[in-house]
Order: sequence, then C-alpha cells, then structure tokens
Amino acid sequence: MELTDIHSPKDIKGLAIPELADLAEKLRGALLRKLSAHGGHIGPNLGMVEATVALHYVFDAPEDKIVFDVSHQSYVHKMLTGRIEAFIDPAHYDDVTGYTCPAESPYDLFEIGHTSTSVSLAGGLAKARDLKGGNENVIAVIGDGSLSGGEAFEGLDYAAELGSNFIVVVNDNDMSIAENHGGLYDDLRRLRETDGKSETNYFKSLGFEYRYVPYGNDVKSLVDAFETVKGIDHPVVVHIATQKGKGFAPAEAHREQYHFGAPFDISTGNPLNIDETPDYADITAERLLEMARNDKDVAVITAGTPGVIGFTPDRRKAMGAQFIDVGIAEQQAVALASGLAKGGAKPFFGVVSSFIQRAYDQLSQDVAINNTPIVVGVFYGSMFGMNDVTHLGWFDIALISNIPGWVYLAPTCKEEYLAMLDWAMAQTSHPVAIRLPMKVVVTGRNYASDYSALDKYSVERRGKDVAIIAAGSMYQTGEAAADALAANGIDATLINPCYLSGLDEALLTELEADHRLVVTIEDGVLDGGFGEKIARFYGTSGMAVKCYGLKKEFADRYSYAELAQACRLTPAQISSDVIDILGRKTKA
Amino acid sequence: MELTDIHSPKDIKGLAIPELADLAEKLRGALLRKLSAHGGHIGPNLGMVEATVALHYVFDAPEDKIVFDVSHQSYVHKMLTGRIEAFIDPAHYDDVTGYTCPAESPYDLFEIGHTSTSVSLAGGLAKARDLKGGNENVIAVIGDGSLSGGEAFEGLDYAAELGSNFIVVVNDNDMSIAENHGGLYDDLRRLRETDGKSETNYFKSLGFEYRYVPYGNDVKSLVDAFETVKGIDHPVVVHIATQKGKGFAPAEAHREQYHFGAPFDISTGNPLNIDETPDYADITAERLLEMARNDKDVAVITAGTPGVIGFTPDRRKAMGAQFIDVGIAEQQAVALASGLAKGGAKPFFGVVSSFIQRAYDQLSQDVAINNTPIVVGVFYGSMFGMNDVTHLGWFDIALISNIPGWVYLAPTCKEEYLAMLDWAMAQTSHPVAIRLPMKVVVTGRNYASDYSALDKYSVERRGKDVAIIAAGSMYQTGEAAADALAANGIDATLINPCYLSGLDEALLTELEADHRLVVTIEDGVLDGGFGEKIARFYGTSGMAVKCYGLKKEFADRYSYAELAQACRLTPAQISSDVIDILGRKTKA
Repeated sequence: MELTDIHSPKDIKGLAIPELADLAEKLRGALLRKLSAHGGHIGPNLGMVEATVALHYVFDAPEDKIVFDVSHQSYVHKMLTGRIEAFIDPAHYDDVTGYTCPAESPYDLFEIGHTSTSVSLAGGLAKARDLKGGNENVIAVIGDGSLSGGEAFEGLDYAAELGSNFIVVVNDNDMSIAENHGGLYDDLRRLRETDGKSETNYFKSLGFEYRYVPYGNDVKSLVDAFETVKGIDHPVVVHIATQKGKGFAPAEAHREQYHFGAPFDISTGNPLNIDETPDYADITAERLLEMARNDKDVAVITAGTPGVIGFTPDRRKAMGAQFIDVGIAEQQAVALASGLAKGGAKPFFGVVSSFIQRAYDQLSQDVAINNTPIVVGVFYGSMFGMNDVTHLGWFDIALISNIPGWVYLAPTCKEEYLAMLDWAMAQTSHPVAIRLPMKVVVTGRNYASDYSALDKYSVERRGKDVAIIAAGSMYQTGEAAADALAANGIDATLINPCYLSGLDEALLTELEADHRLVVTIEDGVLDGGFGEKIARFYGTSGMAVKCYGLKKEFADRYSYAELAQACRLTPAQISSDVIDILGRKTKA
Repeated sequence: MELTDIHSPKDIKGLAIPELADLAEKLRGALLRKLSAHGGHIGPNLGMVEATVALHYVFDAPEDKIVFDVSHQSYVHKMLTGRIEAFIDPAHYDDVTGYTCPAESPYDLFEIGHTSTSVSLAGGLAKARDLKGGNENVIAVIGDGSLSGGEAFEGLDYAAELGSNFIVVVNDNDMSIAENHGGLYDDLRRLRETDGKSETNYFKSLGFEYRYVPYGNDVKSLVDAFETVKGIDHPVVVHIATQKGKGFAPAEAHREQYHFGAPFDISTGNPLNIDETPDYADITAERLLEMARNDKDVAVITAGTPGVIGFTPDRRKAMGAQFIDVGIAEQQAVALASGLAKGGAKPFFGVVSSFIQRAYDQLSQDVAINNTPIVVGVFYGSMFGMNDVTHLGWFDIALISNIPGWVYLAPTCKEEYLAMLDWAMAQTSHPVAIRLPMKVVVTGRNYASDYSALDKYSVERRGKDVAIIAAGSMYQTGEAAADALAANGIDATLINPCYLSGLDEALLTELEADHRLVVTIEDGVLDGGFGEKIARFYGTSGMAVKCYGLKKEFADRYSYAELAQACRLTPAQISSDVIDILGRKTKA
C-alpha cells in the first residue's frame, strides 16, 4: 500500500503481515526524509515504526485509547492517523507538532512533552472507563528512559491494582537520551538477556502480568503479542526490545547523538549546518571540568540530559565519579544535591527551565528549608528558548525566586555568568540558581566574583526621570531601549539587577529622589515574576512602575519576534511607552 | 538504666540485650505519657521504639549518618540523642520539634516533614562520602507508607548503583496514614507472608541486596540484623515488620486514628477534647458523598490522607469505587485526575496546601496545558494552618495562581465554598482549585452557583477613597478593618475577590474614579501572590496600592497572633496604616 492511501488506521486493518512489514519500511523511509530535511526526534521514532504499525493494526483507536509517554515518538502514530501529508509533503511539514496534540486529531488524547506521565494519565482513562462501564482497551506506551521518573512508578503502582484492562507497552531500546542509569535498568537488561525469564522482575513485583517480546522491530512478533493482550481483563506489561535509530546506520551507531537532531545529510548522517560557536553548554562544562580537576568535592549532576550542560561522552569520562546522571528524575537530582552538599561536596545540577518545575517540592523542602548550598544552572529559561507548549522556559522565575532562601542570579553576559558560577560554587551560605541566557554575549568586562552582598543591583548608567531594570537575557533589550531614549533626549538610568530573588531596597528608595518611572524587563511570565515585586515595593510611593514580560498563557510554536511584539518587549516599543508615560506624568 | 541517664547513644552501648529491651519499654512508657498529654505522632513512634534503640546501639551516630523519612517517627531517636528531657519533663515538652531538626542536635541531619525524601538525601550523603574517601555507614529509615512516593523510587533506583555502603531500613507496619494502596504493598505483604522469600521482590528488582526481619519490635532480632549489615560495602535493604502503635492497645487496634492525635486519656485512649463542630473536612465529604450518590462519574481522590477531606472509613465505604486513595503520591493524584476528566469522569482531589507543591509539574503539564476540568480542594492553605516549618500553607497562591488556565477560588464562608464546589464539579471548562479557610464561618447567605464569568470580584460595600480587597480566609479581617475605618469616618469599599488567579480589570479601573488607595489582604507569601498582581495593574496609574500578606520566609512553630502582628495583618494595624497613607496622599 502507498503512504498516500493511509487516511486512518482502518486503512491498514486488512493488510497481511508481509504487507505491514512493507508499509513499515515505507513509513521509515518517509520519516527519514522528513527528519533529514526538517530535524526532530530521530532515534525514538525510527525505533517505534513497527510497534506503532502493530498497535494500530491490532487495537481500534480512537475507541481504544493509546497514550504515548513524552510523545516525541508519536510521529508514526501521526502518519497512520490522518496526518500523512505532514510527513511526505515538505510544504506541510510544519502542519503537525512534534508531540501528540488533541487539537490535531481525536487519536491524540493529551498534549504531552514531559516524561513519565503516560501511565498516570492512562490510569485515569481506565478508571473513568470502569466507572462508566465501558470496555475499551487503554494502552500506555512508555520508553525505558521514562521509567526512571517517579511519576511513572507512582502510575504503575496504582495501575497494578486497577483490576481491569490496562496495557503498558514498555519500549526498551536500552537508552535514555544518553545511556541509561539506575538499578531498574539492570533489571531490564537481565530481562532482555533471559528472554524475559529473569528471577527479578520490576513489573511483576508491582503486580503486573508480564510478557516479553524480544523482536520489537518485527511486525509479526508485535502483532501476535498485542493480539494476546487485547481485551485482557487485568493490568499487563508488554516489554518490547527495540533498536533506537533502527534502519538508519548512523542513528543506530550513535544513539545519543541521534536522539534529536537538526537537519542532516541523509547519505552520511552528518548535520547540514554546523555551528561551532561555544554555547553556554560548552562554557559551563569547560568551567566545571576545570573546577572538578582542582577539587574532588565538585560533583556535576544531570537528570538524563547531559548534553544540555555540555557534558559530551568525552567530558563525562574526564569527570569520572564526579559526574552523576540520575536518569530522568529531577526530584532525585535536587534532593541528591542537597545530600551531597550536606555531606560537604559541591554539587552543580544543570537542568532545562521547563524541567526544574518537576522538583519544586525538593527545591523548597529538601534544599531551601535545609539551606544546603547547592547550585542549579537553569538552561533555556527564556522566551528565546524552546517554543513547544510543553517546553516553555517562562515559568522558572516565579517558581524559584518566590521560595525563601534561594538566591536566583541572572547573568547578562558570559563574563558575568562565569563570575556568578565561580562564586556560587565556592560559597556555602545559600542555595543558588543561575538563569542562563540563550545567546552568548561576550563583553570582555571584568566582574568581581563576589555576590555575597545579596540583592545588590548594578547601576550601569545613572540618568534621571526613568530607570530601566533589565534582568538577565533582557539586559541588552533594556540597554537598547535606553539608547533609543537618549536619542529622544531622555537620560535613562540603566540597571542590571543581577538577582531575581530580592530587591535592592536602598537603591530603589534612592531612585525616588529624581526618578518618576521605573521600568522592569524580564523574559518570564509577569505573574509572580520579578517586576511585580518592584511594583509592590513602590505601591504607596509616587513612583510609577511599568513591568514588561510575558503574558500568563501557554503559547505554542510561537515566533520569537511576534511574541516580543505582542508583549511590547522590543526596545522601540519600550522607549515609546516610556516617552508616553513620562509625558502623561508631566501633564498630571 | 534510667531514662535520665541517657545523654547520648554512647550511654546505651554497654547494655546487654535484655537491658535494651527493658530500656525500650521505659522509652515507650515515657513516650505514651508525653503523647497523651501533648499530642503528636503516636502510631509511627510507638512502632519504632525497638528499631531506634537497635540502630543507635549498633551504629555510631553522628559519624554514621541516619536519615529518617518524614521524620515524624524520630521521637525515640531524639530521646536517645541528648533530648530526653523534652519527653519526660512536661515543662520541656515543647523544647523539641516533631521532626528531625539540625538546629537541635548534630544527630539530626535534615529538617524533614514531607515523605519519600530520605533515600535521595541519604544517597547524596553516601556519594559525598565516596568522593571524600570516608567510610561511615549511611542509613535511610523509610516507612512503607513513604515508599509510594515517586521520589523514594527515584532514590532507590539511584542508590542501588552506588556500589558502596548504603543501608535502607524499611519499616513496614502494613499501614500508610490510612491503609496502604498500590501494587508495591502487595509485594511487601507477600514478603511478610513468606518470611522474605517471595518470588517477587521490589528491592531486589532494583538491585538491592535484601534482608528480612520478621520481628521488628524485638530488639535482639534488630540488633543482629543491623550488626550483619554494619560496614557492608554495597547497598542493602533491611525490611523489618513492625506493629504500628505497638504497646498501646487502642493505637494497635485503630491504627489510622492513632497515626497522629491530640491529647488523649492514657487509660482508654479516648481524646480529651472532643470538638464535634463540623469542619471543612466534614462539610466537603458530606457534599461529595451526596454528589457521588447522584452521579456515578464523580470520583474523589486522596494521596494517602483521606482524613484531611473528611473521608473516614465509613464514608470511604459509602463511596465504593468512586473513592480513590493513590497512596502518598501527589503527582499520581493530579495526573490521574487529569486522565479521569479526559475520560469523562468528575474528579475531586483533596490535598493539604503544603503537599500540593509536590505536583507542580502535573498541575501545569498534565492538567493546565490539557485544560482538563479537574477540581482540587486545597486544605490548610492559611497562616492559621499547620505551623511546622515543613508544613506551612503559605505558598499555594503563588504556586497555583501563576499557572495559566487554573481558576483558583477563595471562598470566605461555608455557603460560598459550597456554591464554588458545586459549580467547580459541574463545569467542564477549566481546572479549578479552591482554597479552603481554616475556620468555618457560617453566614447564611445565598450564593449564586455560577463562577463561569471568570475574575468577577464581588463588591460587598461601596465606599470611596480606599478599597480593601480581602481574599478568602482574610475576608473577615478586611471587613473588620473596614469597620474600624468607618469608626474613623472613612467609608471604605470592601471587596471579596473570589478569584486568586486573575484580575477584575473593569472593577479595578472603575475604582480609579473615586479611590486613591487599594489595599490587598491575603494569607499567603506576598512574593508571587495575589496582591502583587494588583500592584502591577495600577503601576502607572495614580492609585496607591498596599499589599498585606506574609513575608517570604520559613517560620517554624510560630504563634498565629505574633505572626499576624509582625506582618501587620490585624484589622487595627491595617486601618491605622490606611489612615496614615490617606493622610500622606492628601498632603502630597
């Protein structure tokens, strides 16, 4: 059958097994062509081609409900459920998101982008079915890399007791984004090595029936396995062993590198656009490596995403026991760091903004209440970071800066970042988080490596009438707005607050002498953010405060420029607003 | 040996086993006397007497490091580590907190009050030891009720790979706060029933060596077991079967009731002060029971604390399959609710303010991004709630109200609460959280059961010059402040905002006509809270804004009255400030 003939899973129901296998190859070919031209999650999808074909062949979605964990492996599912055009016609490549999306299709149940949630969500679907007396199958598809997250355990622990139909497909490709870590993965390995007959069995210990499918890229094996569990009246785990990157030699050989990728040459696998400019990942890794060489107490932690902090396999090797990958398990990463600090080590945990929110309770209870001096590097915390709705880097300011005890720093350039990092790692008085900008700005300036006088803002230009407080990655925007004002004869004060977690009350009070307006600029959501603290501080004074930041909303695949315009975050808009406000205040 | 002779664990090292058993009985007697007069965690501590004696007999704290999960079972540990007076002298009962507390003793490593963190924290201590080349024992003591939390799984998954000394003592009393739930507990039961030889074994599946101690209240068995693992060079689990409430017949018989208790009659176990006034737990449970009887889609969820929402064993029985206890696993509770709502059910999750923060990512990703209409009842979200540093109910406003899509309601009285609850459970447009006050105020008022016009505040009195916006449980404080102003000839506007998650911009704009000051009152931390949104809204207007709320800090065992004074949250302070501010504004 031709790919253009697939409009819904019904179209593949009548095929014979060899035809399904043939279809899988065609799907893989189309996938590779799109991925090579467009980029995306490569390895996870190549490995799941046959399993997805088999799922839709055996089960009857959307009546039967399939929930994909993380859902970055749902491309083939999309191809089979009415969205083939977005994978074979370059003009339509961007018609679909990289994750399941209910707005696109009734076959997609949830918008999912964080790991380890599928079993919990599917558990709710199954329980709702039971309350309503339905009889559809409920299937959670979860990769081995997602099993390390606590929510997946909680979901399995609950679902095992459901006493009704519940099918968990464990897609085991022996890889998280990087290599797997944790005792559970030894259990999976033992199961693979014994054809599922190992003495220990995590899933059985939680009360699941268990089936093993050694050939997880063989359509017939999968169809057989799924047919035997279809309509089952109790919870069962189907453990399938797949090959990450299956069918594309470079992706099979370099599974970490090809987990996600930008466009590449399909004949060699080499990336098409190589940017060798060091980014904050490289800068961070190099500095931490240097620290670790000189100090055996330095420990660097990742929660399954070493690439985010620049720890390539080579650098991990150089770090030895001082590098810790806890798997995708942010709660563990933060609490472990607290224990490390209490034990006298110097932990740095590098994490994506959107994922640090998985450890709020640990940031508060395990760290802040205990005042353990851990350091958290928050990456992609910016409106210029990831723009998928599930990966927005807009919420970390409100999340971290409102917890008592946390010092949240916002560097404006590379030199300031390194000064802050050096200080944070050397001090033992506070938990410190550092919000890294997306773009590396090199200023060549010297920064004194001491931030122990908390909440001391840096006045970069002293003017009058209006003061612009521009935080972190928005500093350059604030600077450009001040320049635009200067061109209009307004001599603005420009302030780098350095700290997102507290107010420089002395400076703010001093500004009242000759300023009428304070402008704050941040690239996080305004609600609960930095600017509101300034607005509250000046609440009963004569000072006007105008806060710039992002609206409280979940945007999806937005254009950076359009979002900036919509939130009036461009220097031209800000300077124009300031002129307008000062004009009004003068008239009043 | 007499209890007064215990100054440190060294004092018990020379005792023979029968003397240790005798000491355990004396400790239990003293514990019971204090608990009956003072209240506290009864069952967990009575069950851990022998194990704690054995731990301190065998291991050499504080060099060896013992981390107690939740740490509400650490009373005997405190008695053995220099704090006996606080358990035998009523004048010193309040010298110690109910949890481990580093400020009290070097034997206490962390301030801990949330469950499931011990293995992660201890893992950090062990890793720090290994980096530093130390050789002390690191021991995590975790109850079966805490194993259901995902962080505990993440901690075990990591620790199993440590490759060095790591001892997990699993205190299995076959109970969480209420009965246990989840597949894992079947595994523990099978292990108990087979003397540790069951075919399935959760701990072994994660890679731990495993030992079983059937008599967990027998000092000799425990000493033997701990001696064999002392100095071990790899991770091991020692699973001890204990009796919750051991040695006090009422607590043995009624394990849920005696988990935590107020003062009781030591001869009968009956509580000394019975307050039969229905609280919000009762009110909630009765209303939900009624809803559930009429609608099979209604599902009530607890994360291991059914008592918090009034679901006594009788009421749970009446709810049947419509009541779900996921164990102490808040992530699961929230994500499961999202799945239930997506499947067409009507889930209500009742949770303590301090614990909802364990599910921030689920509130955001699993619920808000998917806009699933779940209802969360937030209990004890107040300065008048629990006052232990680990259980403060001050952070939920900033946590929930800054997530896009959540409607966060703040009822001011019983009637308004029920109107909001009815609406929340009937509607399918939004996720809704309701912040319950501590004290039940009965007004007899009728409230229209429709809150679908979001962010519409209710003007209770229309005055001029100053408007007081008093949220939820602070409404009566705002009312009293308005009364005090009236007595001073100031006719204040009084507003019940109803919504914590958004602004009534039309009303706020209208106020500008004849008001010079807006006062906000909330009993949450000011930073990231409700009032700051109002301050930002009026930032460039002529309106002064004064925000009342709590300072960003972790207070511990504070006095309600003193905290209110310190934060100027009394009606007298607020009205006095208002008079002062209006006077200044008039002069200006």
